[in-house]
Amino acid sequence: MAKQRKRRHRGRLFIIGGAEDREDAKVVLSRFVELAGGADASIAVLTAASNYHDEVWEVYDRAFAALGVRHHAPIVIKSRDQANDDTLAQSIFDADAVFMTGGDQKKLVSLIGGTRIDRAMHRALRERAVCIAGTSAGASAMSEHMLFDAGLGELPVRGNVQIAAGLGFMRRVVIDQHFSERLRLGRLLAIVAQNPYLLGAGIDEDTALIVEPGLGLEVIGKGAVTILDGREMLSSYLDDEGQRQLELTNVKLHLMPAGARYYFDGSVQGSQTKTSDGRTVPIALYDVVAAVASSADAPLAEPVSA
Amino acid sequence: MAKQRKRRHRGRLFIIGGAEDREDAKVVLSRFVELAGGADASIAVLTAASNYHDEVWEVYDRAFAALGVRHHAPIVIKSRDQANDDTLAQSIFDADAVFMTGGDQKKLVSLIGGTRIDRAMHRALRERAVCIAGTSAGASAMSEHMLFDAGLGELPVRGNVQIAAGLGFMRRVVIDQHFSERLRLGRLLAIVAQNPYLLGAGIDEDTALIVEPGLGLEVIGKGAVTILDGREMLSSYLDDEGQRQLELTNVKLHLMPAGARYYFDGSVQGSQTKTSDGRTVPIALYDVVAAVASSADAPLAEPVSA
Repeated sequence: MAKQRKRRHRGRLFIIGGAEDREDAKVVLSRFVELAGGADASIAVLTAASNYHDEVWEVYDRAFAALGVRHHAPIVIKSRDQANDDTLAQSIFDADAVFMTGGDQKKLVSLIGGTRIDRAMHRALRERAVCIAGTSAGASAMSEHMLFDAGLGELPVRGNVQIAAGLGFMRRVVIDQHFSERLRLGRLLAIVAQNPYLLGAGIDEDTALIVEPGLGLEVIGKGAVTILDGREMLSSYLDDEGQRQLELTNVKLHLMPAGARYYFDGSVQGSQTKTSDGRTVPIALYDVVAAVASSADAPLAEPVSA
Repeated sequence: MAKQRKRRHRGRLFIIGGAEDREDAKVVLSRFVELAGGADASIAVLTAASNYHDEVWEVYDRAFAALGVRHHAPIVIKSRDQANDDTLAQSIFDADAVFMTGGDQKKLVSLIGGTRIDRAMHRALRERAVCIAGTSAGASAMSEHMLFDAGLGELPVRGNVQIAAGLGFMRRVVIDQHFSERLRLGRLLAIVAQNPYLLGAGIDEDTALIVEPGLGLEVIGKGAVTILDGREMLSSYLDDEGQRQLELTNVKLHLMPAGARYYFDGSVQGSQTKTSDGRTVPIALYDVVAAVASSADAPLAEPVSA
C-alpha cells in the first residue's frame, strides 16, 4: 500500500482522549480519515495496546469502512519479535496513517518500544509526513515521558504517579486521557509537581489534539484539552516529605475547547506572540504550543531503517 | 448566652466544602468547636438554607454534643419577618460562633440577606471576633458574589453559570463547594472567565478553608482548596459569542491541601512575599491571600444594630 504523496504539511500527531465516537457522527475519526488522505488513504490499525486484538480491530474496521475508507488493515503484534518483523514494519512505514488503539500503554510500549515498528512510525512521520494517531492508551504512549501508573484520588499526592519512557512523538509533554471524565486533574498536577519541566496535556474523551510539528495545534471533538504549565510553579514537593498531599502554587492552566486553533506566525513581542490569523496570545501559550509542536519534529537519535 | 471575651485574633471565617464528617473523627467540626472557644462556647446553628430544619439540627445537635459542646442551639428562620426578629438577631450576635448548614444558598440568601440576622453576623464577626462558619450552601452564601446557579458538565460553557449577591463575608472571591468530588473545576473556570476580577475558591468535601481577616489562611480536613486566579487570563469570552465552550489561557491555579497554612508578614519584594514562618512564596499567592483575608475585614456600608 506504499504511495509517494506530496504534502505541504509536516505530518501530524492526532492524539485522542479515548472513547471517540465510532458509531454515530464520528467527528474525531472522520477528521482523522480526512487528514490521512480520505477514502483512498491506507490506514494501519495497531492493536498492540489491547489484549483483545480481534474485538478492537472489528470496531475500527466497521468505523473506517463506514467512513468510506477502502484500505485499512490491522497490524497485530503479540511479541517483540513480531514488532521487529521487517514486513510488518514496512507496512507501517508505507501507510498514510497509523492508528494506535486503546488498551494498556505499558503493554504497548513494552511490546513495540525501540523496535522496527516503532522506528517505522517515526520515520513515516518525518519522511512521509503521515498522520500518527493514538487513542486512550495509544495517546498516552505517544509522549517521551509517559504516564505509567497512578493511584486513585482526585488530589495530587506525592509518589502517586509514575513516569516511564514512551514512544517519544512529543518531548517534554506528558499526555493524559479521559481527562475531565475521570477526574484526572490531580494526577496530572502530581506529574507536573514531580517534573516541573514537563507540560501536562489532559485530553477529554471523544476529543483530539491535532499537532502539526513546528506550526501549531488544534482541538476537535466534544471536550477540551487542558494544558498545565508548572515552570513557574512553587511546590511543596521537596520541602516537606512528610506531607503526602502536594501544595502547588502558580500552576498555569490553559483550557482549549474543541474549535480552538493556534497556528503561530513565529513572532515574539515581550510577553505576547501572535497567531497567523492575527490574534495576540500570551507568550506562555506560545511556549506551550512550541514545546508541543517542535518536539515531534525532533530528529531521532540514530538513523533508522524500516 | 452573651459573653465578652478578649481575643488576640480578629474572628474567623470557617468555610467548609460540605459533607464534613459528623459521625467519626469529626476533624473539621472539632476544629470549629475549638476556634469557637471549646466546650463552653455558645454555638448558633442556622438551618435556613435547608427545608428540613429538624433533621439538619438533629445531625449537628448530636455532633456538637459528642464534641462536648454544652451551649448549642438552633436558629430556625422560615420567613424574612423572622430573620428581622430582634430576639433572634440578638442571640446570633451573642453567640461565640455561628454555623450555617447546607441546603440551598438561594434559599438562605433570600431568607436572611440584608436582614437583622445577617447584620448581626457581620457585627459579631467585627465586634466580637467570633467564628462564622458555613458548609456547602452555607459556604457558598458567604461570599459577596455568590454562585447562584450552574448547568451540568465538566467544561466551562458560556452562560452556564449565574452569580447573585451573597452575604458578603468575602469580597472578590466566589466560593464553590463539593469541588473535586462533583467535578466543579469547569464551572469555577466559567465564573472566572465571566468575572476576571473575582478569584475562584473551590473547597473539597470534609475540608475547611479557615480565614483570619487580614492575617492569613489555613486548610484543614480531608481534601484541598483550589484557588483560580484569572486576573492575567485571556479568554474567548468576548471574542467569539458563537462559541459556547470557553477558551481560557493563563489561568493561575493554586492548590492548597489540608495542612497548608499561609500567614504573611506583610512584606512584598518584587514578585515574592514571605510568610511569617519565613517561607518565600509567589506574590500571586499573597494577592490571593490578601484578597481573601482582607475582604472579611471590610466595614459594612452602614451602621447596624442587632
